[in-house]
Amino acid sequence: MALTGKNLIAGQWTGETENGFVAFNPALNQPMTTRFADATDAEVEQAIVAANKAFYPYSQLSAEKRAQFLDTIGEQILALGDDLVKTACAETGLPEARIIGERGRTVGQLGLFANLLRGGEYTAVIDKADPAREPLPKPDTRLGYLPLGVVAVFGASNFPLAFSTAGGDTASALAAGCPVVMKAHTAHPATAELVAQAISSAITLCELDSGVFSLIQGENYGIAEQIVKHPLVKAVGFTGSERVGMILQAHINQRPEPIPFYGELGSINPQFVLPAKLAENPAEIAQGLVASMMMGQGQFCTSPGVWLVVDGEQTEAFEAAVKASVEAQSAGVMLSPAICRTYQQTVAKWQDIPGVSLLAFGQQGESHLAQAAVFTTSLATFIEQAELQEEVFGSTALIVKCSEASELLQFVSALRGNLTASIHAADADISLAGELAIPLAHKVGRLIYNQMPTGVEVCASMNHGGPFPASTNVRSTSVGSEAIKRFQRPICYQNLPAELLPSLLKD
Amino acid sequence: MALTGKNLIAGQWTGETENGFVAFNPALNQPMTTRFADATDAEVEQAIVAANKAFYPYSQLSAEKRAQFLDTIGEQILALGDDLVKTACAETGLPEARIIGERGRTVGQLGLFANLLRGGEYTAVIDKADPAREPLPKPDTRLGYLPLGVVAVFGASNFPLAFSTAGGDTASALAAGCPVVMKAHTAHPATAELVAQAISSAITLCELDSGVFSLIQGENYGIAEQIVKHPLVKAVGFTGSERVGMILQAHINQRPEPIPFYGELGSINPQFVLPAKLAENPAEIAQGLVASMMMGQGQFCTSPGVWLVVDGEQTEAFEAAVKASVEAQSAGVMLSPAICRTYQQTVAKWQDIPGVSLLAFGQQGESHLAQAAVFTTSLATFIEQAELQEEVFGSTALIVKCSEASELLQFVSALRGNLTASIHAADADISLAGELAIPLAHKVGRLIYNQMPTGVEVCASMNHGGPFPASTNVRSTSVGSEAIKRFQRPICYQNLPAELLPSLLKD
Repeated sequence: MALTGKNLIAGQWTGETENGFVAFNPALNQPMTTRFADATDAEVEQAIVAANKAFYPYSQLSAEKRAQFLDTIGEQILALGDDLVKTACAETGLPEARIIGERGRTVGQLGLFANLLRGGEYTAVIDKADPAREPLPKPDTRLGYLPLGVVAVFGASNFPLAFSTAGGDTASALAAGCPVVMKAHTAHPATAELVAQAISSAITLCELDSGVFSLIQGENYGIAEQIVKHPLVKAVGFTGSERVGMILQAHINQRPEPIPFYGELGSINPQFVLPAKLAENPAEIAQGLVASMMMGQGQFCTSPGVWLVVDGEQTEAFEAAVKASVEAQSAGVMLSPAICRTYQQTVAKWQDIPGVSLLAFGQQGESHLAQAAVFTTSLATFIEQAELQEEVFGSTALIVKCSEASELLQFVSALRGNLTASIHAADADISLAGELAIPLAHKVGRLIYNQMPTGVEVCASMNHGGPFPASTNVRSTSVGSEAIKRFQRPICYQNLPAELLPSLLKD
Repeated sequence: MALTGKNLIAGQWTGETENGFVAFNPALNQPMTTRFADATDAEVEQAIVAANKAFYPYSQLSAEKRAQFLDTIGEQILALGDDLVKTACAETGLPEARIIGERGRTVGQLGLFANLLRGGEYTAVIDKADPAREPLPKPDTRLGYLPLGVVAVFGASNFPLAFSTAGGDTASALAAGCPVVMKAHTAHPATAELVAQAISSAITLCELDSGVFSLIQGENYGIAEQIVKHPLVKAVGFTGSERVGMILQAHINQRPEPIPFYGELGSINPQFVLPAKLAENPAEIAQGLVASMMMGQGQFCTSPGVWLVVDGEQTEAFEAAVKASVEAQSAGVMLSPAICRTYQQTVAKWQDIPGVSLLAFGQQGESHLAQAAVFTTSLATFIEQAELQEEVFGSTALIVKCSEASELLQFVSALRGNLTASIHAADADISLAGELAIPLAHKVGRLIYNQMPTGVEVCASMNHGGPFPASTNVRSTSVGSEAIKRFQRPICYQNLPAELLPSLLKD
């Protein structure tokens, strides 16, 4: 199916594309040709109202029907074939192997939730009646879960498939029984449209209400405000920058009715290289960190942005290995010109921060490409300069050289919330690792030992979230099967006859 | 131990009581004598900083130690003996039997969480490593839970024990591993101090850091703002009016770091009396509803505030029975003069709402007592007059007479969020009950069949919450063992050596 450039509003492709916006091919450094509509207020309203209308019938579907729908979306995404891969590569500058891998993960996520639904989407808690209890009889009470209602999802720039149109937020919301109104990221509107076509086909094949999914295109920022303030929207999922996330949060705070906002924002993912580990093989750990930093051109939310070492005999060898490794890195394509510009400006700015030194640049490329960069600083400077705790989206890292091991604990104490942290330790480091692990756990959503933070398992025990600003809602994960809980809420059924109970709550 | 009138700040009783406030005995209609301090900014700051200092050590205690602490608090509350009962009765006007029952519930709640801790405070999810997996090895990932940090709790006027100083919010926060800074309700400062003495004794007996619990007294409203905006406060529990709750929410919205706000606000708890049920025995259901409405002088959050009937042959008999039953009710003491005044003003105002008719008044009493009142109206008026959906705290209810059964569904569609709703149905009503139950479930936290809403079981399958304004956080319950989850958050441990894993996550 050809691209329309339009919005998908409850089954209809609508909108004026003539004066619309275009995507950009960051690898070719040139705009693309398809024009995309800016959704109007009326279209956004129509999408949300249709989603709300679809809510009760959709939420009443059996778990098996919802599972079939998720599986069908996955099949339809695969049926898009090479078109989808080529389009996503063109719009994001990400390599084909990565997009194919991400497509697999996206389909896998849909399958994970389908399996969850088939296995029982929640664990029922049943306390039966005890009419003989004194002083008062105990009624029959059963705890189940209901979907929240219409969920708004904002696509992420850095995962055009796995955190976008049919990504983790959409999959978990649909699994929970919530219709989704999706705002496509402006950097990959064609990828979004193709995936929306797949979802639309799945809706038709599964004979569902077309209001279950709508795709909103548009550069006009007012669209986001309209969506998150809408009284029929009952939860919002977002992955992006702290700056944009906090604008959405401010809009949501103006609602008369509070709703959950699942914003996955910034993270610097500190890497603690403990002394014995560093001594074992400084070059190996250096190369491992640089490789992790370079993944996706540093555009992973779990990119290791700060590396801590205790200054000692091995520091020089470590820094030399980092330098050699960074200098061998080619300049790379970033997701969009705006992202690349921000990265370049931040790297330039860091060179002027007193107490921060440039250790190494990667290879220089054309002006639209990003050059890797690693800096060094002291703990005192890191603590003084608040901006060093802000995520720099791209292939850069800051080595914080601590004068002694106790400074690692001071660092943890000053640290804001993060998605992840890794402790790299040898056997001789175990006692220091234990001391660090306790306070560090309270600052992160995932605590890692001797592994790099990039690469997030999609499984039941994953947590992708963490204290603010890693997430605006520390009690939730945006990856893994627990993500469905963001869009469900508890309900107690008291003394209900069996025929009125949800199937999971019957005897 | 005598009353000090002071704040308990991390183990020290501090504050100037000389110009402090006094409580009021609503039954005697006269002020009490003990003066209570208004906590200063410095005292509030000190309490929060001490709580934060106590957080890591307290959160590291074994589950058994935390369970012992909760049990000891319960024992120390019982050890207060008659003093506590007499004090709570004097400050609230609630009868002795009720306070003794509530004390039992409070101690029972502490025991419930102690048992939960002993049985494993959460269910571990463990996905072991699979080094042979293609294309990438699967790391070992384990999902556990951590306490959030310092929790601020605001005492409720209507449950001086079970939702106050050592009530459900405090018990669940302490169980989760969170220190508590408690703001006592100004209507029962002496009750709060006695219970704080019990907690303080338990802290000493269990050899805990005194920062684990502080009690803040004060009439100065700035105290609440200072507490909820404090950067070290990581969650807030509140039970009270929608008006005050939304003021707290607005303060919390101004924080740079979003935190969960568990506000249990208003609820009108609609009661649907279906036609066959009404026909069976109009007098019995009428008397049941009036009795439920009169519980605690109508000051239960689950008080049945709106009763729906389909106008028909039995309406007259039903109304006559309600009238007879209401007219037999004595006027009663309310929790405070302010609450009584608001109740009386609202009842007076309702008499002037066009389309609302007074059906019956209870017996008149002295001017400081509240007189029961039941009104009737049509569905059209209920939908037009938004104020009829606001909770009236006290012994009143509104009968909404629907012209046909389909109007019951229209009512549900117009209904805001509620803690509970009951469907009263006979066998012949089952199909209508089924039609109602689906949309009604989406409006309530607890759906009840053929039972009154007053009386909340404290058990694992309870949900005391619901869509806004029943709760500011629909995904949480403030009653039952699930309440602990409000103060915990997930964390994934990846590839950690056994010695660094929490005990519940070891193999």
